[in-house]
Amino acid sequence: MTMGHPALLTDHYELTMVSAALKDGTADRQSVFEVFARRLPPGRRYGVVAGTGRLIDLIREFRFSTEEIDYLLERSVVDEQTAAWLAAFRFQGDIEGYAEGELFFPGSPILTVSGTFVECVMLETLALSVLNHDSAIAAAAARMVTAARGRALIEMGSRRAHEEAAVAATRAAYLAGFSSTSNLAAGMRYGIPTAGTAAHAFTLLHDDEATAFAAQVAALGKSTTLLVDTYDIAQGIRTAIAVAGPDLRAIRIDSGDLSVLAHHSRELLDSLGATETKIIVSGDLDEYSIAALAAEPVDIYGAGTSVVTGSGAPTAGLVYKLVEVDGRPVVKRSEHKATIGGRKTAVRRHKPTGTATEEIVVSQGAPEQRTGDRLLQRPYVVGGEPVDLPSLADSREHLRQGLISIPWEGLKLSAGDPAVPVTVVPAS
Amino acid sequence: MTMGHPALLTDHYELTMVSAALKDGTADRQSVFEVFARRLPPGRRYGVVAGTGRLIDLIREFRFSTEEIDYLLERSVVDEQTAAWLAAFRFQGDIEGYAEGELFFPGSPILTVSGTFVECVMLETLALSVLNHDSAIAAAAARMVTAARGRALIEMGSRRAHEEAAVAATRAAYLAGFSSTSNLAAGMRYGIPTAGTAAHAFTLLHDDEATAFAAQVAALGKSTTLLVDTYDIAQGIRTAIAVAGPDLRAIRIDSGDLSVLAHHSRELLDSLGATETKIIVSGDLDEYSIAALAAEPVDIYGAGTSVVTGSGAPTAGLVYKLVEVDGRPVVKRSEHKATIGGRKTAVRRHKPTGTATEEIVVSQGAPEQRTGDRLLQRPYVVGGEPVDLPSLADSREHLRQGLISIPWEGLKLSAGDPAVPVTVVPAS
Repeated sequence: MTMGHPALLTDHYELTMVSAALKDGTADRQSVFEVFARRLPPGRRYGVVAGTGRLIDLIREFRFSTEEIDYLLERSVVDEQTAAWLAAFRFQGDIEGYAEGELFFPGSPILTVSGTFVECVMLETLALSVLNHDSAIAAAAARMVTAARGRALIEMGSRRAHEEAAVAATRAAYLAGFSSTSNLAAGMRYGIPTAGTAAHAFTLLHDDEATAFAAQVAALGKSTTLLVDTYDIAQGIRTAIAVAGPDLRAIRIDSGDLSVLAHHSRELLDSLGATETKIIVSGDLDEYSIAALAAEPVDIYGAGTSVVTGSGAPTAGLVYKLVEVDGRPVVKRSEHKATIGGRKTAVRRHKPTGTATEEIVVSQGAPEQRTGDRLLQRPYVVGGEPVDLPSLADSREHLRQGLISIPWEGLKLSAGDPAVPVTVVPAS
Repeated sequence: MTMGHPALLTDHYELTMVSAALKDGTADRQSVFEVFARRLPPGRRYGVVAGTGRLIDLIREFRFSTEEIDYLLERSVVDEQTAAWLAAFRFQGDIEGYAEGELFFPGSPILTVSGTFVECVMLETLALSVLNHDSAIAAAAARMVTAARGRALIEMGSRRAHEEAAVAATRAAYLAGFSSTSNLAAGMRYGIPTAGTAAHAFTLLHDDEATAFAAQVAALGKSTTLLVDTYDIAQGIRTAIAVAGPDLRAIRIDSGDLSVLAHHSRELLDSLGATETKIIVSGDLDEYSIAALAAEPVDIYGAGTSVVTGSGAPTAGLVYKLVEVDGRPVVKRSEHKATIGGRKTAVRRHKPTGTATEEIVVSQGAPEQRTGDRLLQRPYVVGGEPVDLPSLADSREHLRQGLISIPWEGLKLSAGDPAVPVTVVPAS
């Protein structure tokens, strides 16, 4: 499956703006674009930066093939002058931003792209596609991880998302603290542990459940998970232990009232001597249903649809706005009053205990540094050259620490205000 | 951006089932899997089949590279026997299903995959990823097209969706009747008309709005669209006509109360002699806000976030279930009572006026044919060989006709029951 370059994953108007700017001499004006959210999805208390590493990899390959340029010329999307410019295009500017796994709030400048107008405007669509998707998934996944209270979560939603979005969703869910995934491509590309054993189809393929379980144990050993709810669950559990013995690793229940079933299944497993056999539950779990199972003897949650669709918020609401031209702050007049032009620098303030209290975002200057302040921006690309990035494991730990640092109300699943206020200070 | 084969866009458990079935001799049992929805998203009155053409193209390339097989062996996802089988894998079975652009309802068997158990089970994840995503977008887009009452719709949501999902979303929206898209990759891959002119950034780049408009008109001509809401909209319109003259093709308004603004803008344009200048509105439009603008002098709608995220239903709820093994119907016992095993054949019944009245789905047999009946399934793959498929334009027309055929209540945007009931008849 060979795709085109990422450069064509771009809105038509980016290229018509490039055309017009190349013609009237404004193309090389030094510009600063910022990515930020005007608001969080309704009731959400934090956002999670995710996808920046993926974006930087895509920008590395962001150039136009001859075939693509021919297409653009043929359809009169661009003229010859612009076509020549596109053929030579490489991003030579700078990108800085919040680390992956960093929390963000309305007004946080999570990515800053600077360079000539034309090279920066070209990245808008791709930057927003990647960050809006991955950040939406990471935020939903982080809430599920909080709700799971230390129990493991398997991401198994690939079938409910576009086939490539599913791979990115897996990466974002792992960043947010999920333990493993069903998605093999994500396993191979990002080194994420994969998991999976059998579906109901495997039981139905066989003449009876015992034969199916025996075939699975013969192939995969006792450290497998037997899916016990194809027919009668209690009978399924008895059959599972009869076939695999009491050292079966796990059973999975994918339907029914999971609270009741987990409870009864634990008692039954214990009565059969399978006291170490784990219980995995799945089936349309979201952060709320996971939280509702906290008191039940569940060992592992499988989450699918809800995590890959952002649990009601499938896109993060991030925008990419021109904030500075040749050193002059610019702003769309009719926008929300809080929008302030100029390149921003951001710090997060903390109490001596480590709890975050506020984020200070200063236009065209640097916030006064105090004890407990943490600068939030780091370089990603310098003069067109990507710098070394943290590993996915590092980003995962970064988020884990970030969630410890916010005020405790920030971790509540109920609707509320952003956990940390952002103050944007205009250029003086 | 070279991706791996689509084969790895698959859940881990599909391959462990293959392993176990190859070991115990059930691998070659003749199996039939069906894709269907148990229910539509809450309140929706129809689903739209989309993505099948994309899926068939992906199945064509569905094989495992040496590198991918090495990964699977290394991580013990599969054993040597299975690895050898994967290396030789080509789907040799049959696929039939509803045409792209066909309407579907709970219980409609929109795709039927038959062959050996192992070759069919392997396709589950990819088939669901593609169909769940594309069908979700097409259904939301079709509702917007109905709401637009013949006015043109531009799809401009790429920035709110995963970068590759955005291309598939564009295809689905075009199938559903959108006129054009901002997404250049979709333009090149699928021949969809693309559109776009300038963002607020282009105005902000310049010293003033008049200079920006003049630059755009110099580059793109008067058959362009000027974005007039960066500062004051009335002044923006006056400037647009002063710069481009009264034969400017269009203005775009992307913020504010679009009802009021469309009305005032039309009056102002007319008073300036720009009676033919079109008004394009955009900014978080969904089917409801489009419907609310029906009485206003809007010519073209731009829809983004809502269409690419399925307007509240980002996935279509389709499942892939084993329904028949060696000619014997199979069914998971604990499922919804309406689930019936066996390969299904579907017809839609119509009144002499052409209005659809019901869908009859017969297990292991064919429905009695009456006047006005239409068989809903067509071949996609025969013995591993894809057959010729209708063009995207044909699928678009198919859906347009389908929406004319359902009872009028089916086109209401308000919540309601499925527009056409499906009766599933068990094998006799």
